[in-house]
Amino acid sequence: MAKNRRFVLASRPKGAPTPENFRFETVETPVPGDGEVLIRNRFLSLDPYMRGRMSDAKSYATPVEIDAVMGGGTVGVVKASNNPRFSEGDLVLAQGGWQDFSLSNGRDLRKLPPELDHPSYALSILGMPGFTAWHGLLKIGEPKAGETVVVAAASGPVGSIVGQIARLKGAKVIGIAGGPKKCRTVVETFGFDACLDHKDPGFAEKLKQAVPDGIDVYYENVGGKVFDAVLPLLNVHARVPVCGLIASYNATGLPDGPDRLPLLAGILLRQRIRMQGFIISDHYAGEFADFERDMAGWVKAGEVKIIEDVVDGLENAPDAFIGLLEGKNFGKLVVRIGED
Amino acid sequence: MAKNRRFVLASRPKGAPTPENFRFETVETPVPGDGEVLIRNRFLSLDPYMRGRMSDAKSYATPVEIDAVMGGGTVGVVKASNNPRFSEGDLVLAQGGWQDFSLSNGRDLRKLPPELDHPSYALSILGMPGFTAWHGLLKIGEPKAGETVVVAAASGPVGSIVGQIARLKGAKVIGIAGGPKKCRTVVETFGFDACLDHKDPGFAEKLKQAVPDGIDVYYENVGGKVFDAVLPLLNVHARVPVCGLIASYNATGLPDGPDRLPLLAGILLRQRIRMQGFIISDHYAGEFADFERDMAGWVKAGEVKIIEDVVDGLENAPDAFIGLLEGKNFGKLVVRIGED
Repeated sequence: MAKNRRFVLASRPKGAPTPENFRFETVETPVPGDGEVLIRNRFLSLDPYMRGRMSDAKSYATPVEIDAVMGGGTVGVVKASNNPRFSEGDLVLAQGGWQDFSLSNGRDLRKLPPELDHPSYALSILGMPGFTAWHGLLKIGEPKAGETVVVAAASGPVGSIVGQIARLKGAKVIGIAGGPKKCRTVVETFGFDACLDHKDPGFAEKLKQAVPDGIDVYYENVGGKVFDAVLPLLNVHARVPVCGLIASYNATGLPDGPDRLPLLAGILLRQRIRMQGFIISDHYAGEFADFERDMAGWVKAGEVKIIEDVVDGLENAPDAFIGLLEGKNFGKLVVRIGED
Repeated sequence: MAKNRRFVLASRPKGAPTPENFRFETVETPVPGDGEVLIRNRFLSLDPYMRGRMSDAKSYATPVEIDAVMGGGTVGVVKASNNPRFSEGDLVLAQGGWQDFSLSNGRDLRKLPPELDHPSYALSILGMPGFTAWHGLLKIGEPKAGETVVVAAASGPVGSIVGQIARLKGAKVIGIAGGPKKCRTVVETFGFDACLDHKDPGFAEKLKQAVPDGIDVYYENVGGKVFDAVLPLLNVHARVPVCGLIASYNATGLPDGPDRLPLLAGILLRQRIRMQGFIISDHYAGEFADFERDMAGWVKAGEVKIIEDVVDGLENAPDAFIGLLEGKNFGKLVVRIGED
């Protein structure tokens, strides 16, 4: 058996992560114990939430311990099984982490159809990002036909799917993305009505012109200056699902004043706005099957698409992840660990 | 017919309203035209939302014009009617404003039972404040038995009713009020499990100790330092109905930094919190009948009580209103204009 290459958390980042926060190790490949399964990881999903796990600040998930393997969703193949539910050769969705091989007691594994055309889709459009888009938009945003939906990070895996679903529901959809190239794809590939570049100095004014009827749903996964531009445009009874705040994940403190907390509360009150945070892991038991049925149908019909950004080689995971937080990549970031 | 005494808005307040913002006038009593009703106002409700109407900043309701009569809910008696739906002597709920007499085309009038024991209850426990408490707590807060509900301005008309309904639903209820006297009443008269004085320098720490299981519902009608103390104690999946922000109504600008808007957004996300503003006037058509049935039953059974603060004489309305915004009054503030 090959050795196991892996990234462990070497130190906690102060602000943006650096390559030094990760340590690359080569260790013996573990042997599955009673009831355990050994998995060869083929694809690793890289996602913004991982930044939170690198810190030990209070969050919704336990932080990664120093010297522990970086966690993450993976698609892999069972290489050895002491668990009656899984056999050698099974394709599985797992929490395999940033490494070649992982062990599981089977509880966090989901068997995938062996003939899956795009195994990595289980990490993107048919997996966590797709489910995040579907739940936040449909269960909290509740867009109605003719309403205006604004989507931040519109070229990203979650945002691009949010906008495509909102279009299917008959809403007018405005995306926000960083740079003209991303914006072009949002309109041409994902079919948004328009897309605005938040790096444009006239961004706030252009957003205002793009939503003459105001904003009914703002799908928030960015925060920062994008939210600032959206805030005064929110309509009465607007809904703001909050699934991420990537703009502040690397922040080491709060921005300078004035303190706009009372401003936000006042807008929520006057405009009767619902702002609601959610974490997708709360909703698998209740809703994943519904999501899967909807999305599999849309993907098959070509109504919802995804762009993947596949990085080759586990050794490139830290740089790819650092770039993700800087908005450098384009599409759902997945690392191809190996196909064997 | 007696002359009509009234208060008009003389000037818009900068910060806290002063007596000079109001002008007392005596004018001819108006004569009802076709389809109109003349009402002798008996009770006038004074409420914090009126501060918003005195400003011309963007808000959910049209501001009072300069030299126009200050608006407000009233209970009165029909003195003359050219409207087939109303007869002389009818007791009515109206938007009569700060004056002895008012005209109505009948559309904003609601007939009250003539035998009503406490006509002013139509302005408090059976009216707008009671409905505000009922809707915000039950439709947004959705308290479950065993959960912890924290209520700001707990000795006020809305807060006191929120807490009593939450107790009926089996929640543990902690009130927050200004001063030991108000706090005693919140516990002894309204039956809250505990009440904390927000003027106590150790308030934030005492609140933390009073909610060992965290806060599941925070009924927000204050803002400011009370919200600051509540924020870190909100549980996963907490609900925050926002029906008022009296602490900032007189503010002329935002407080100094740091800017805690990203902090609030981050807490909403991590704790998966729903924060939702509402304005009760949106909900009369759909829900008032349900509220009235619930509340009339609770009042009759002695399960929900109100304390009224009745000020005698229309001429005292401005001072009473200014005191209301300063937290000086105790109970639902109502002006007895006259009983004739």
